[in-house]
Amino acid sequence: MSELASSPSGAGSFGREGGERQRGGPASEQGFDPRTGQPVGTPVESTSDSLLDQICALATKSAASWAAADRAPYLERVADALDAESELLVSTADAETALGVPRLTGELKRTTNQLRLFAEVLREGSYLEATLDSADPDTVPPRPVLRRVLRSIGPVAVFAASNFPFAFSVAGGDTASALAAGSPVVVKAHPGHPATSRETARILTNVLPEGVFGIVHGVEAGVRLVRHPAIKAVGFTGSTTGGRALFDLASSRPDPIPFYGELGSVNPTVVLPSAATEQTATGFAASLTMGVGQFCTNPGLLFAPAGFVESLAAAVTGSSGGVMLNERMQHTYQSGVDGLAAGELVELVATGTAPEGGWAVAPKLFAVELKTFAANLEVLTEEHFGPAGLVVTYTDPAELPEVLAQLPGSLTATVHAEAADHAVAGQLAEVLAGIAGRLIFNAWPTGVAVAWGMQHGGPWPATTNPLHTSVGATAIRRWLVPISYQGWPEELLPPALRADNPLAIPRRTNGTLS
Amino acid sequence: MSELASSPSGAGSFGREGGERQRGGPASEQGFDPRTGQPVGTPVESTSDSLLDQICALATKSAASWAAADRAPYLERVADALDAESELLVSTADAETALGVPRLTGELKRTTNQLRLFAEVLREGSYLEATLDSADPDTVPPRPVLRRVLRSIGPVAVFAASNFPFAFSVAGGDTASALAAGSPVVVKAHPGHPATSRETARILTNVLPEGVFGIVHGVEAGVRLVRHPAIKAVGFTGSTTGGRALFDLASSRPDPIPFYGELGSVNPTVVLPSAATEQTATGFAASLTMGVGQFCTNPGLLFAPAGFVESLAAAVTGSSGGVMLNERMQHTYQSGVDGLAAGELVELVATGTAPEGGWAVAPKLFAVELKTFAANLEVLTEEHFGPAGLVVTYTDPAELPEVLAQLPGSLTATVHAEAADHAVAGQLAEVLAGIAGRLIFNAWPTGVAVAWGMQHGGPWPATTNPLHTSVGATAIRRWLVPISYQGWPEELLPPALRADNPLAIPRRTNGTLS
Repeated sequence: MSELASSPSGAGSFGREGGERQRGGPASEQGFDPRTGQPVGTPVESTSDSLLDQICALATKSAASWAAADRAPYLERVADALDAESELLVSTADAETALGVPRLTGELKRTTNQLRLFAEVLREGSYLEATLDSADPDTVPPRPVLRRVLRSIGPVAVFAASNFPFAFSVAGGDTASALAAGSPVVVKAHPGHPATSRETARILTNVLPEGVFGIVHGVEAGVRLVRHPAIKAVGFTGSTTGGRALFDLASSRPDPIPFYGELGSVNPTVVLPSAATEQTATGFAASLTMGVGQFCTNPGLLFAPAGFVESLAAAVTGSSGGVMLNERMQHTYQSGVDGLAAGELVELVATGTAPEGGWAVAPKLFAVELKTFAANLEVLTEEHFGPAGLVVTYTDPAELPEVLAQLPGSLTATVHAEAADHAVAGQLAEVLAGIAGRLIFNAWPTGVAVAWGMQHGGPWPATTNPLHTSVGATAIRRWLVPISYQGWPEELLPPALRADNPLAIPRRTNGTLS
Repeated sequence: MSELASSPSGAGSFGREGGERQRGGPASEQGFDPRTGQPVGTPVESTSDSLLDQICALATKSAASWAAADRAPYLERVADALDAESELLVSTADAETALGVPRLTGELKRTTNQLRLFAEVLREGSYLEATLDSADPDTVPPRPVLRRVLRSIGPVAVFAASNFPFAFSVAGGDTASALAAGSPVVVKAHPGHPATSRETARILTNVLPEGVFGIVHGVEAGVRLVRHPAIKAVGFTGSTTGGRALFDLASSRPDPIPFYGELGSVNPTVVLPSAATEQTATGFAASLTMGVGQFCTNPGLLFAPAGFVESLAAAVTGSSGGVMLNERMQHTYQSGVDGLAAGELVELVATGTAPEGGWAVAPKLFAVELKTFAANLEVLTEEHFGPAGLVVTYTDPAELPEVLAQLPGSLTATVHAEAADHAVAGQLAEVLAGIAGRLIFNAWPTGVAVAWGMQHGGPWPATTNPLHTSVGATAIRRWLVPISYQGWPEELLPPALRADNPLAIPRRTNGTLS
């Protein structure tokens, strides 16, 4: 069960990154500095069953008043409070993740902007899908007065990821969207950054009403949380193995609950002949090695003309790796790329540089012909979390659609093409739309904007539910359920459904949006 | 596994209603006349594995062109073709279900109106959630040009119900909404009305492009369908046992798929003191016995003042039962009410009349005090599919919220109240909103309008997914997945996302709906 707390995309939580059990005492989670491998900060105690039950009871108790509260100002206050402690949060996170101050400063800003976007979503109000139908006794079947609106599903559990200690952790997208929806949130902290989690949780707890936010630590607490009767839905970002195990737990409850897991993704990228330029090669190497490749949108699988491999290899050879988030992640990456290099299926064509010490790794690039790839699709689409890429070489783009259609589900799929290849790009888009949630043109998949139009999701194994996104305005829909009021007196309706539209929100009346 | 093909809300498919295996020949499904218990029509052969695989392959093959087709006219043509054969369809269904010509004529009209509503939904176009964001390089993280739209999830399996041979069967709400979404549909026919299914399927097959519609028969075919790689989502209306088994199959696939099951529902109704009138009593008896109680929205659980039991009992005593859909349903109902009558928890306070012969049953009303009910909640909220009700008597409405909050999830919850009790009704609505998808005021839950504002869903066990509805315009959302296009050239975008809005649909641009 240790893999249940595992970090995104193939890297678990074993060993020194956390969950260390003290003989005779309560279990605790210890942070480590990836640059040295040494402990950093004080350990955080794992959450006992009774404390978890208390946290869940408070979440249930606060649910109705939170759902009815004016929540936009709260989200903005959380954002302001996080920004106000940016220096402390970033330095704490850097000590535990080695992701660097510039990246973490940007990530925290992204996290607080995300909270502010959801405040905007709440004020705009169309997320409620308010719908008013007048009666029509003459239709078949007769229509009574019906008014439909969305409301919070109830308390939600959020499993934090290791690779974004802010944006996909305690105050990240799942938490922000669930709080926006009116759901109290209980976060299962990631063991990779316990001190960062503790500091973020302190800020949320200070700003939000009692019970609306809670946090638990430890693998056992996570399992108990997913099966807890108080919890009505789960958000998760992490490995396919860990996410699948928790999805199975959620689905096998006496009362199954929605489980939104963002799991593994190989993010196929196609470089069409017209785009096989030096700029594309350096862009690829930069995207592959960004954040030491520890992104769920890392472009691990590149389809390129055979003649382009040399340029790609040169770019990756000139690129730098870094220290990974934890020892297990480093070990999994290293044994994965060593295994590929030792095997006969693919050829190692480039190795970048690595810093000294800690949990450092070097970028790697492998190459394989399209036919060999197609014949070994399952093993060669296995994700190697970190700065490793596989170039699949083709001779004619017409060979691509059949192979692309068989790829596992991804969060993103990318095409690089100049005008001469636009028609081919259009054909590829039709195929790629079936296997990925976001299609990118002449850019790289790393970097996920927080916007109304973002889709961060995709078919299995990219996620456990392709209908939804974990980033962007519509992430809120995961935590909302519809309810229809039939024939209720005006004064007993929720404000969103009253005739005079006191919230001044967009609504649909007898089928027409306004 | 026989329960996998079971009919709605507690009644399975054993015995004579279908699935009879001929020694030495292929399995087949035989219709029976519930009025006599005698076979009617010719048997329909169960679908072989190879035929099912062919049907699924055709569905996959037709998926892209169906998703791109102008589908509204097809839905209208299906509706017209069904209406044109109304006489044949209704008489065939009446022979297999005994639901009566007037009810079945209305149900078919409801079914074709439902297809026409989805044509309207397609033309209106906001179901696509088309969203256009322009670039903002100065925000954190930078925003590229993003355009988001919904598209078909792919081929869908639909499990038909027994109690609505049109509206929740071959051409019912799941099929209509999935076809509207652009998903090819493979229906698993219900064994209770094989000839009706065959005739309906013939009409759909004639109108729709090849591969867009298919039908299979038999329990084994249903199981194979849910696990078939071609199938991307499942709709189901039926018993909690059968639905749970199929949900577990869908969730345990190597690639889990969404499963939308509408299962059991006790539909609690509260009569507040001001509404305890003769009119309410006769309204209750009429709703309880409508369609021999074979509705998923049957008001099986009534909370009423102790002094009102006599009126309710008189109304039910004066009511008539009828023949149930099949022998097993009759047997389950009869043994259920006999068990309640023989036990010591509840008191039998009324028995209506039953016709002679066939699979006839009589309405039954039981009564129990609120305290006893609360102490035996699990056993007393078991659904008895058919015209049986349980009155839970209270002395003070203030006792109700605590008990109502513990009820299992239902499709509907109803309050009857005059002005003097409006304040109490409002308090009850807050509790009932947590346990049901549709709240009804001063009316009865039987009868489900097909409208933009309808919600036909609810928390487990009412459904396997409380985020969605199986009736009404938004039922289409179950079969759609979002996709974002980042930075794509105008001419390669789907029409819904092009700058000049060639479809003239409502869209959101930089956060603003228009």
